[in-house]
Amino acid sequence: MPNLDIQVYPEISAPERVEAVLLWQHPKGILREFPNLKLICSMGAGVDHILSDKDIDPSLPISRVVDKGLTNPMTNYVLMGILAYQRQLSRYQKNQKTKTWDMSNPELDITVGVLGVGALGGDVVKKLQVLEVPVLGYGNSPKSVSSYPYYYGTQLQDFLDKVNVIVCMLPLTEKTTGFLNIDFFRRCRKGTYLINVARGNHLVEEDLLTAINEGFISGAMLDVFRKEPLPKEHPFWETPEITVTPHIASVTNPDAAVPQILENYNRIKSNKPLLNIVDRNLGY
Amino acid sequence: MPNLDIQVYPEISAPERVEAVLLWQHPKGILREFPNLKLICSMGAGVDHILSDKDIDPSLPISRVVDKGLTNPMTNYVLMGILAYQRQLSRYQKNQKTKTWDMSNPELDITVGVLGVGALGGDVVKKLQVLEVPVLGYGNSPKSVSSYPYYYGTQLQDFLDKVNVIVCMLPLTEKTTGFLNIDFFRRCRKGTYLINVARGNHLVEEDLLTAINEGFISGAMLDVFRKEPLPKEHPFWETPEITVTPHIASVTNPDAAVPQILENYNRIKSNKPLLNIVDRNLGY
Repeated sequence: MPNLDIQVYPEISAPERVEAVLLWQHPKGILREFPNLKLICSMGAGVDHILSDKDIDPSLPISRVVDKGLTNPMTNYVLMGILAYQRQLSRYQKNQKTKTWDMSNPELDITVGVLGVGALGGDVVKKLQVLEVPVLGYGNSPKSVSSYPYYYGTQLQDFLDKVNVIVCMLPLTEKTTGFLNIDFFRRCRKGTYLINVARGNHLVEEDLLTAINEGFISGAMLDVFRKEPLPKEHPFWETPEITVTPHIASVTNPDAAVPQILENYNRIKSNKPLLNIVDRNLGY
Repeated sequence: MPNLDIQVYPEISAPERVEAVLLWQHPKGILREFPNLKLICSMGAGVDHILSDKDIDPSLPISRVVDKGLTNPMTNYVLMGILAYQRQLSRYQKNQKTKTWDMSNPELDITVGVLGVGALGGDVVKKLQVLEVPVLGYGNSPKSVSSYPYYYGTQLQDFLDKVNVIVCMLPLTEKTTGFLNIDFFRRCRKGTYLINVARGNHLVEEDLLTAINEGFISGAMLDVFRKEPLPKEHPFWETPEITVTPHIASVTNPDAAVPQILENYNRIKSNKPLLNIVDRNLGY
């Protein structure tokens, strides 16, 4: 789009001419510098980093990237984590070091619970069904789904009683911040395995270590953390039950994201309805 | 089947009364002890252990187990291996030890080639397509498939030029014994990853080490070996590029296998056509 004037913060020549911003974890408050803003675009699927900025005009539309290029890598990362747990890859890696040939119990009996079944979580559910891995969904609000068991709101305990692998794919909202805390873990079946690919702030990190010590959680694969990069002194690095990956489950693909952002910009200019706009009340 | 007389070798009270045998890697030659045999049943999907016994009457039907309970675990093991390679799990495990946060190159660009697209290999192809991982098949004979690119016979080089992950799911026959040898590896693209879940005898084991040293093969996940359990002194245990698992990709599930075996036994008794019978010329 050669005629589009693009400027990179903080080198903005005429802030009053800025109509749209594209951002990821911007310094809070800076959007006040743009009095004629009409559109805020997140560079990824998450918008918690935007909604947590209390200085943003609540009437401004916020768009997020909805992209197959985000979905597939995310799903494949989650499937890798689930299958490596079910088929006990880490056990065989340990046995290889001691040259131990142990064929016993080749598969764990698992039922996966996906927390958050939106575009990303829903894809994980669908693919697990294809792999014939039993799977349940849980979300904030009622949802009419017939192809898999879905639980919501106060049905959390019923859901937790049935699963022993939990995948967190929730949006980060006020309601879901710290959702994975010690009270949650103590309601899980003993030995439940956790995968978090959503946001570090879903998890109360010290509570996970307690839950591992208490046996409610047997292990975890974590791609997101409260502070990233994960600080060198963080205990997760050295916890043998935890696999740390550096927020790589899904990375925004510019080829997919850019057309969506330009499309919304063009829609703003021609007063058409916008795509992939966030509901601020829901937080996603 | 309470009326069925079942005896366990070598405690056979009346060998001339034995009509059917159920076996897995039997001592060669012992079937000569049963002059009235009508059916040989393999306990698993493979029959190479039976066909390699040259003392068996070539007119005797041999059945194998065809079981979803074999297919799903096999497929999920293979998918785990492919996804762990694509998403570089071993790299992150290494980085965790040194507390290194490295987000670069989160996904390898892979195209999977499946050698042998029968009941098991075909399922891997189908599931990879669902996961949107590019996949090609290769087999011994022409096959009319439209849903994925299929190569056969002398088209091996065309196939190898297009893939960088190879999954061996061939039946073990005279033709495929030692198929994965140094000539094969040198025709692969540099850095190709190998997964073998078929039989140890498909692989010339010392050639794999050469191919790793030469860079044609970047690493391998192996579930089957020429000698099992893999001997303590075998170099694979200590090769960092190789993941050893103890023949657990797929284990016969008695609940699925037994009804098939009884069904064939009943069909023998009532002169009906048998199920899942092996073509001795093809070797599977």
